[in-house]
Amino acid sequence: MKKRSTQPGHLRDRIKALRQRLEPHELSAMLITNPVDIRYLTGFVGDDSWALIPMRGTTIYVLSDFRFTEQIDREAPHVRAILRKKSLGEELEKLANKRGDGRIGLQRDHVTIAEHKALIKRLGAKRIKAIDDGLLEQRAIKSPEEIRAIRKALRIQQTAFHETCDFIEPGMTEFEACAFLEYRMRALGADGVSFPSIVAADANGSLPHAIPGKTKIKMGGTVLIDWGAKWGGYCSDLTRVIALGKMNPTLREIYQVCLDAQMAAIDAIGPGKPLQAIDEVARGIIDRAGYGDRFGHGLGHGIGLDVHEQPALSGRATGALQPGHVVTVEPGIYLPGIGGVRIEDDVLVTPRGRQVLSDLPKSLESAMI
Amino acid sequence: MKKRSTQPGHLRDRIKALRQRLEPHELSAMLITNPVDIRYLTGFVGDDSWALIPMRGTTIYVLSDFRFTEQIDREAPHVRAILRKKSLGEELEKLANKRGDGRIGLQRDHVTIAEHKALIKRLGAKRIKAIDDGLLEQRAIKSPEEIRAIRKALRIQQTAFHETCDFIEPGMTEFEACAFLEYRMRALGADGVSFPSIVAADANGSLPHAIPGKTKIKMGGTVLIDWGAKWGGYCSDLTRVIALGKMNPTLREIYQVCLDAQMAAIDAIGPGKPLQAIDEVARGIIDRAGYGDRFGHGLGHGIGLDVHEQPALSGRATGALQPGHVVTVEPGIYLPGIGGVRIEDDVLVTPRGRQVLSDLPKSLESAMI
Repeated sequence: MKKRSTQPGHLRDRIKALRQRLEPHELSAMLITNPVDIRYLTGFVGDDSWALIPMRGTTIYVLSDFRFTEQIDREAPHVRAILRKKSLGEELEKLANKRGDGRIGLQRDHVTIAEHKALIKRLGAKRIKAIDDGLLEQRAIKSPEEIRAIRKALRIQQTAFHETCDFIEPGMTEFEACAFLEYRMRALGADGVSFPSIVAADANGSLPHAIPGKTKIKMGGTVLIDWGAKWGGYCSDLTRVIALGKMNPTLREIYQVCLDAQMAAIDAIGPGKPLQAIDEVARGIIDRAGYGDRFGHGLGHGIGLDVHEQPALSGRATGALQPGHVVTVEPGIYLPGIGGVRIEDDVLVTPRGRQVLSDLPKSLESAMI
Repeated sequence: MKKRSTQPGHLRDRIKALRQRLEPHELSAMLITNPVDIRYLTGFVGDDSWALIPMRGTTIYVLSDFRFTEQIDREAPHVRAILRKKSLGEELEKLANKRGDGRIGLQRDHVTIAEHKALIKRLGAKRIKAIDDGLLEQRAIKSPEEIRAIRKALRIQQTAFHETCDFIEPGMTEFEACAFLEYRMRALGADGVSFPSIVAADANGSLPHAIPGKTKIKMGGTVLIDWGAKWGGYCSDLTRVIALGKMNPTLREIYQVCLDAQMAAIDAIGPGKPLQAIDEVARGIIDRAGYGDRFGHGLGHGIGLDVHEQPALSGRATGALQPGHVVTVEPGIYLPGIGGVRIEDDVLVTPRGRQVLSDLPKSLESAMI
């Protein structure tokens, strides 16, 4: 058997926190099936694989296959890789029996009804327990290394945005601008995009999830751009609205309302602040300006290995902000047939307040390119 | 209430086939939670949404939210959109009670343990039934419109490949070539990539799932490129290996073995042929050449709205090919420390045989650029 390297310290800490939380469930091991959680706990970035985290000892197992042999060696040389010949369920059964595992925990948010049934059949209902592993909450608190990765993603996406503003000409389609923006993020070193970019000209901006198309960007028109880069697995996410030449008076008005709401909400961010309260700050300003019914989505969301993570800044959210949370703040006002404005930045909650990680200009004047 | 338009014929046919298959389960409605299936059955391309397909009548419901109001109007004007204020589960409960629904089917491969439990709590265990809806098999058989979309994706990815071959210079990193390739696909009209592209120089080619990095492309070296475009939601997927100038003799040898295996497997494709048999044809040729243990993955997979669909061409697959199946054929030989070769085309099963939908050259000579 190949000698495995030592588990890196940051992964050891993550697994330690997981194990502590799982203690009351009296498991002998936890099965991790969500690829993003596998990456978070082992460093391995593949799919069609499971990780088994025993409650004690230093051995972490990754059940994978031939396609990932070398990749596991590179990315997670400390794990014991089991290259399956048969199904993941069959290999898990073999491993659990060999180890003499008692009860194995399953991620109740990442195992389907069909997978659950198949595992009950293999291992017996008494030997498995579907639980909330609390990884969403754990992952919501970012370490300095994770914050560095988000900052790096932001630098890439901001540089690509500047390049795209220089590239955009009247007559160009949303699609061409979008392709160029995503190209520049890739060329500047992004792993990829955090999500398919939105580049929405004029009235298309009123669709919060517009898909870039053949609509042309016009002189005197606006473009809403919502885009993000991924770096080292971590996502960033920003929105800006730009105007070619002038912005029409209605959009100017909602731009300013949106910006006021966004900046007030950012100022309200701090440790211990209820999630709902931050949403309310922005919503109050937009309500009072008479556009309350045109801001139909939540104010923001956590970002990390997933582009939508905990915590949610919304009227339905419970709980409070904690140091290490990184959230988007993105109020929007949408006027069907006219256009939309959304302004979004990424904000870190610090022990004493907040730090805005993004630094693209956002005044009404800066929006005119 | 807004007047809804008539359900398009192709969607009516898809829902009809689904309903017929579901008949034995004695449901009053089927809940669709997989976004790709929602698109397939309604035309709506959003997330965080569910569709409820009653077993009778012409009304199809989409439970969504404010962000998608206008998008549903554009993409699926025939559905009844319910814009939720609360959770999807709560809105479903309300709708089911209003409709007087009896038993509702759940997609057992797309509902998690936690969602299942929450729905049981809302609706009662007797009113829900987790089932295999057979959509994977239904979606595996492509209509002429779906085949047209795959062809369109292929044309885009092939043109982008030619442009990238012209663009590649010795000294360029895998990353730069990859960014350009993906840019050209987007600029040529792709919705996006089918999956993150692989551009792997020299020894990196031995990782079947290599991630493009800073390795430089060298004169006299090889580059394995595995990439795909998405168009109208449909994925294409090809692999080619190119050599700058000359290819080293070992790689030439495995290239020819791989190509022979691929072409023989393609020739074996036809309606009624067992899936395993196609895999065996390629595996036999690679085995006899002495590289059997270096071809560790299945021969191919279906493509469609997902890049990995039914049917699988592998030694573990059961069942047979049918007209309308579209599969990749992609044998590979991987030599750690040296490099890898994989050659992949997309093939349609026709009533009498097969048609290769892709047409990029693949002879050993054509690989030298």
